[in-house]
Amino acid sequence: MLQIESRASERVKALVRLRDSALERREKGAFFAEGLRLCTDIAGVQPALEAYCTRAALAAHPQLAALADETALISDSVAEKLAGTKNTQGVFCVFRLPQPLRTVRPGGRYVALEHVQDPANVGALLRSAAAFGFEGALLCGGCADPFSQKALRASMGAAVKLGIARYEDAPQMAGALRAAGVPLVAAALRDSVPLADARADDARGVAVLVGNEGNGLTDEAVRAADVAVRIPMAPGVESLNAAVAGGVLLWHFRGGACPQA
Amino acid sequence: MLQIESRASERVKALVRLRDSALERREKGAFFAEGLRLCTDIAGVQPALEAYCTRAALAAHPQLAALADETALISDSVAEKLAGTKNTQGVFCVFRLPQPLRTVRPGGRYVALEHVQDPANVGALLRSAAAFGFEGALLCGGCADPFSQKALRASMGAAVKLGIARYEDAPQMAGALRAAGVPLVAAALRDSVPLADARADDARGVAVLVGNEGNGLTDEAVRAADVAVRIPMAPGVESLNAAVAGGVLLWHFRGGACPQA
Repeated sequence: MLQIESRASERVKALVRLRDSALERREKGAFFAEGLRLCTDIAGVQPALEAYCTRAALAAHPQLAALADETALISDSVAEKLAGTKNTQGVFCVFRLPQPLRTVRPGGRYVALEHVQDPANVGALLRSAAAFGFEGALLCGGCADPFSQKALRASMGAAVKLGIARYEDAPQMAGALRAAGVPLVAAALRDSVPLADARADDARGVAVLVGNEGNGLTDEAVRAADVAVRIPMAPGVESLNAAVAGGVLLWHFRGGACPQA
Repeated sequence: MLQIESRASERVKALVRLRDSALERREKGAFFAEGLRLCTDIAGVQPALEAYCTRAALAAHPQLAALADETALISDSVAEKLAGTKNTQGVFCVFRLPQPLRTVRPGGRYVALEHVQDPANVGALLRSAAAFGFEGALLCGGCADPFSQKALRASMGAAVKLGIARYEDAPQMAGALRAAGVPLVAAALRDSVPLADARADDARGVAVLVGNEGNGLTDEAVRAADVAVRIPMAPGVESLNAAVAGGVLLWHFRGGACPQA
């Protein structure tokens, strides 16, 4: 069994780059995940390329040895370095980045994000989309990377369950949806219909588009959408938490794909 | 105009205690808030007892002089100390703690929390409750203080718009609701009905009970409830973000109190 004792080793440096850099993840076609639950969850979807555990973690959870073809033992000092904190479970994996979603499917259900910048919000939105039976996430503008550590933690691994597609901007995304006949529903406070009055046609599918935490959707995104909806709020309240607002919208548009039992 | 230059001054120390300690807030009957938007929002509901601004903040926003009877000028160094960070808008207020909610009202709508420990979740749940026209928050067990800095930021001031009542435990809370004839709806994954099948009776009101982020509600809380509901999830997904799950429940039970336009 490979053992890594020194935090100065080349392998540890490479893992930290993968952890911290979206560019590095793209170039290597892989991402880094931390934590017993998260690594185990993702490994249930696809096997890990590499696994790293402390002696204590492996003793407590012998099944960790099966996460990847080879599990390396790491020192506590390396674990702290990889976790960036002293409180770590000492479990880390590298996984292959999932294949991007190639095409939007007629009848499919998607969460669509424009300029959602907080990785915790991106993660929570993906988690809600997976929970409510959506099949993909469409990202455009400057969204946080779903494979950053914060986003992965918040998504609880949903990033590997959903297909993810990236677009330059909202009009390009809207074009792909239009080609598949999938209506694009934008969340917008003005010039919109109350959510309770908006219905999706199960046969056509739906894409639910959520915008930036502070500024909402761009005008071009709202124009590109087929319909705009709002979550009505009591007087004196101006907005909801972005992950909560998105969660309510995804719940409303979950359709028949989500089991009702 | 009072000026505070030194971060070692007794006034600054007292403000930091108010910022950091729930006990201090209870003893003084006051809470501390930071930020232009948050302070202005809360001051729209109740005037500030004290206001503190940097010279730059006051120059940019002259209306800050009207937040309280007297606004004190603080040095940048004091502002950094109060904010606990270098990135601060330089705007701080002390407000009176709102009167606790004395009684549960027949027909009222409440969000109820048991052991919700993350202040950001407590804040987001209060924000959603205020947005969806609920009138109060009932806390029991070891919930995070709604007047901590993280909770206040997440609630965007909803903590002063909702009446807040505290109970020892869920059975005591359930007793107060029962006395008012308000049904208690518990969020629970097992032995529960799918959310879409659960309806509240607008005339009787409702209390929506959300539990701990990791462990959900205690058994005694579920037993004390009149009905248990669950948000159905797709296979392979075990849970939602606590603030999102609560938001979906509050949206579902918003009743007629929330404007539909």
